Amino acid sequence: MLHQQNLTVNAAGHLAVGGVDTLDLAREYGTPLYVLDEDMVRERMGLYVAAMREHMPAGSRPYYASKALCCKALCRMARDEGMGLDVVSAGELYTALAAGFDPADICFHGNAKTEAEIGYAIESGVGLIAADGEEELLRIDTLAGALGVRQRVLLRVTPGIDPHTFAAVNTGVLDVKFGEPIPTGRALAVTERALGLGNIDLAGFHCHIGSQIFEAGPFLLEADVMTAFLAQVREKTGYTAGILNLGGGFAAAYEESDTAPDCAGMIRAVGERLAAKWAEYGYPAPVVLMEPGRGIVAAAGITLYTVQNVKHAPGGACYVALDGGMGDNPRYALYGARHSALVADRAGEEQSRAVTLAGRCCESGDLLGENVALQRPRTGDTVAVLTTGAYTYSMASNYNRAPRPPMAAVRGGRARLIVRRETAEDVAAYDL
Amino acid sequence: MLHQQNLTVNAAGHLAVGGVDTLDLAREYGTPLYVLDEDMVRERMGLYVAAMREHMPAGSRPYYASKALCCKALCRMARDEGMGLDVVSAGELYTALAAGFDPADICFHGNAKTEAEIGYAIESGVGLIAADGEEELLRIDTLAGALGVRQRVLLRVTPGIDPHTFAAVNTGVLDVKFGEPIPTGRALAVTERALGLGNIDLAGFHCHIGSQIFEAGPFLLEADVMTAFLAQVREKTGYTAGILNLGGGFAAAYEESDTAPDCAGMIRAVGERLAAKWAEYGYPAPVVLMEPGRGIVAAAGITLYTVQNVKHAPGGACYVALDGGMGDNPRYALYGARHSALVADRAGEEQSRAVTLAGRCCESGDLLGENVALQRPRTGDTVAVLTTGAYTYSMASNYNRAPRPPMAAVRGGRARLIVRRETAEDVAAYDL
Repeated sequence: MLHQQNLTVNAAGHLAVGGVDTLDLAREYGTPLYVLDEDMVRERMGLYVAAMREHMPAGSRPYYASKALCCKALCRMARDEGMGLDVVSAGELYTALAAGFDPADICFHGNAKTEAEIGYAIESGVGLIAADGEEELLRIDTLAGALGVRQRVLLRVTPGIDPHTFAAVNTGVLDVKFGEPIPTGRALAVTERALGLGNIDLAGFHCHIGSQIFEAGPFLLEADVMTAFLAQVREKTGYTAGILNLGGGFAAAYEESDTAPDCAGMIRAVGERLAAKWAEYGYPAPVVLMEPGRGIVAAAGITLYTVQNVKHAPGGACYVALDGGMGDNPRYALYGARHSALVADRAGEEQSRAVTLAGRCCESGDLLGENVALQRPRTGDTVAVLTTGAYTYSMASNYNRAPRPPMAAVRGGRARLIVRRETAEDVAAYDL
Repeated sequence: MLHQQNLTVNAAGHLAVGGVDTLDLAREYGTPLYVLDEDMVRERMGLYVAAMREHMPAGSRPYYASKALCCKALCRMARDEGMGLDVVSAGELYTALAAGFDPADICFHGNAKTEAEIGYAIESGVGLIAADGEEELLRIDTLAGALGVRQRVLLRVTPGIDPHTFAAVNTGVLDVKFGEPIPTGRALAVTERALGLGNIDLAGFHCHIGSQIFEAGPFLLEADVMTAFLAQVREKTGYTAGILNLGGGFAAAYEESDTAPDCAGMIRAVGERLAAKWAEYGYPAPVVLMEPGRGIVAAAGITLYTVQNVKHAPGGACYVALDGGMGDNPRYALYGARHSALVADRAGEEQSRAVTLAGRCCESGDLLGENVALQRPRTGDTVAVLTTGAYTYSMASNYNRAPRPPMAAVRGGRARLIVRRETAEDVAAYDL
C-alpha cells in the first residue's frame, strides 16, 4: 500500500515520510496535521521544468497551479525551481507577491474576476492575464487604459475536447463556464476583437481540457486543435501567437491500482506533436506554458489524524473516528474521491480490515472514505491518509468551527511548519 | 418566487429583506454578502421556545444547533430568546463563551471529541456533555475525575429510525458513526456502565434521527422508541431519566414547491405523544430538549452576489458568473441542494430564464445551481440566492484563496455587520 515512493516503514514499524517518523511529527505538531514532502515537491517541479525545457521551444516552462495548494512556502519552492505561477484570485496573487514571487512570472486566471482583482493584477505588474472571454477582455482594456498600461493577455478558448474519451466534440464539453469556444467561431471572433483593443497586448491563447489525465492522448488532441486554431487565426487576421498555454490536468495516483503517469514522457510527446504541427503549418513555434498543480503536490502530501474511537455498527461498518474529516479534506464528501490510508503506528502490518474513516463533524456524510483497507485500528493510533497534497488544505473549511490544521514540510530529513495551526480565537476573529 | 415571507419587492422594483433594499446592502457592504433577517431569526427562536414551553413538561426548551450557523451574534440571539445552545467543537464552545452564553445552558456534542475538548468543556462548566458512546463515557469519567468534577452527561443512542420511510428498522440506519444502538441492546449495556461511573451524572439520553423532516411522523416514531427505551432502562436498572433530548431535524423550505413545516404543530404532536406514553408507562415525564438549527436560520438568510459576466455556451446553458460560489456555499457541489434565486435589481419581473449560476472558482463543478429560474441577467446585476442562512457560512472555505464574505443582520429595518469581511491578508496570515 506504500505506493507513494517517498513513504517507508522505519525500524520501529512506523510510517516515515521523507525519512521522518510520522509519529514524531504527530507528537511535535499535533493532529490533524498536513505533511508535505518538500524534497518530492521540488523534485517534481524540477522534472516538469526540465522536460519542458528539453522538449519544447526556448522559454517554455510550467506554471505551478496555485489552486491545488497555495501558501507562501509553495510559492517560494516554485520560484526556486524555476516555475512560473498560475493564480486565480486576488488572494493567491497576494500570497505570491508576499512570498517575493516575481509578478512578471505570474499568470492571472479566473472565469469571474472582479474589477478590483483585475486592477490589482495590472497594478502589480503580472506578466499575463488570461481573459476568460469577450466581456472580460473589454474590462481589462478599460482598466489597463485607466492605469496607463498595455497589459499582456492570453485569451482563454475552449477546444471542445473530452479528455475521458479523447474525442473532439462540438457540444457537451463546450457546456462549461470557462473560455470562448473554438468550434462555433466565437474564439476567432473574440480574437479579432482583442487585436483591435488599444490597451491589450494579445500574447497568445490559453486552454485547459480537464483533470486526472494519465496519458498523452488528450494533450495530443489538444495540441492538434490548438495548432489548427492558431493557424486559422493567422490566416484570417495575420496574427501570430507568441504563447500557447495548454493548461493543466496531469493526474496523480490516488490508489495502489493507479499507475503514476509518466509526465516527462507526456511532455515529450506533446512537444513532438507540436513541432510536427508547426512544421506542417509553417508557423513559428510559440513558447509553451503548462500548469501542473495536482501532478506536483498531491502525491507529496499526507494527512495525519488521531483515532478518537472505534465502533462496530450492528450489521454495518467499522467506524474509525478521526479528529479531522471533511473540514480538512472534503474530497470524499464532494467527489467520492478515494484515498489510501495506513495506521502509522503499525505501518508494516497487514491491512486486513476494511473500515469507514469517519470525520469529527456533526454530519453523517462527514467521512474520509468507506471500505478503506487498514491495519487493525485502536483508539489513540495515528492514521495517515495518503495523497492529500492537492485540494485538501486549499479547500479546507471551519465547518463545526474546527480550526484548520497546520502543515509541516519535510526536507532533507528535517521537518518545519510552513502553515501554522489555526486556533478557536482565529476562527471567531471575524465575529462582531 | 418570493416564498420567503420576509422578502418583498420595493417601490424601486428591488428585492428587500426585512424592509431593507438589498441593492443598498450590496453597495454598503460589497458582495458577496450574507444577509440574515434577525427579526425572522428571533421570531423563529421564540416560536420554538413558546411551543416547547406550552406542549412539553416544565423546563423543556430548544437548544440552538450552532453548526447550522455559528458566530457570536447568533449565540447572543439564542440567549436573548431563551434558547439553550448545542455546540459540537471547542471552536463553537469558545464562540459561545466569548459571546457571554451561560455554560450551564450549553450541551457539548460530537462523535469524536478530543481529550482537550472534553477537558475544556468540563472546565468551562457546560451543563451537559452528550457522550457519543462507551469509549467516550470512560474518557469523560476519567477527565472529570482528574478535575474533581461530577459531570452531567447525556448518552447518545441510535434509535434505528429512517425519517424518510418513518420506519423503525434494525439495520441500515444503525450503520452510522453516531451513538450506541438501542435495537442491539448496546445502548442499555452502556447505560448500565454509565450508572456505575463515579464522575458521571447520567442526566438522560440524546438521539437524532435526521434532517429536513417536514412532518411530525418521524418525531412521533422517535418518541415511541425513546419512551419504550427509557421504560426498559428503568425496568432493568431502576434508573429514571431526567432529560430526553430528541435532537434536531426540522426542515426548511428551499424551493417554492416546498411547504414550510408547521414546527409548532409538530412540537405539539410530539408533546402529546410523549405525554400519552409516559402515562402508559407510569413514567415521570422528563424535561424535553430539541435542537433546531436549519429550521431557525435557513429561511432567514440570503446571499447577494454581483454578476461578473453572462455567457451562452453553444448548445448549452446560459452561465451567469458570480463573484462567489462553492467557497461561500458548497451545498450544490456537496449535495446537489437547490436554492431559488432572483435578480435583486428587477425582482418583480418574470423569472423567464433558466440559467446556470456559476461560481468564481477555477473548477467546472463550482456552480450554485443549474436550471435556476431567473430574471434576464446582466453583468453588474445583484443576484440574491435564497434560503442560505444554514450550512453556508458555517461550511465556507477559502478555496482559490477567496476571502469569505461578511454577514449583515437586518433588524427593525436597519442593517449592521455581524461578521466582518475576510481579507487576502487574513487568508495568508497562517503562512510561515
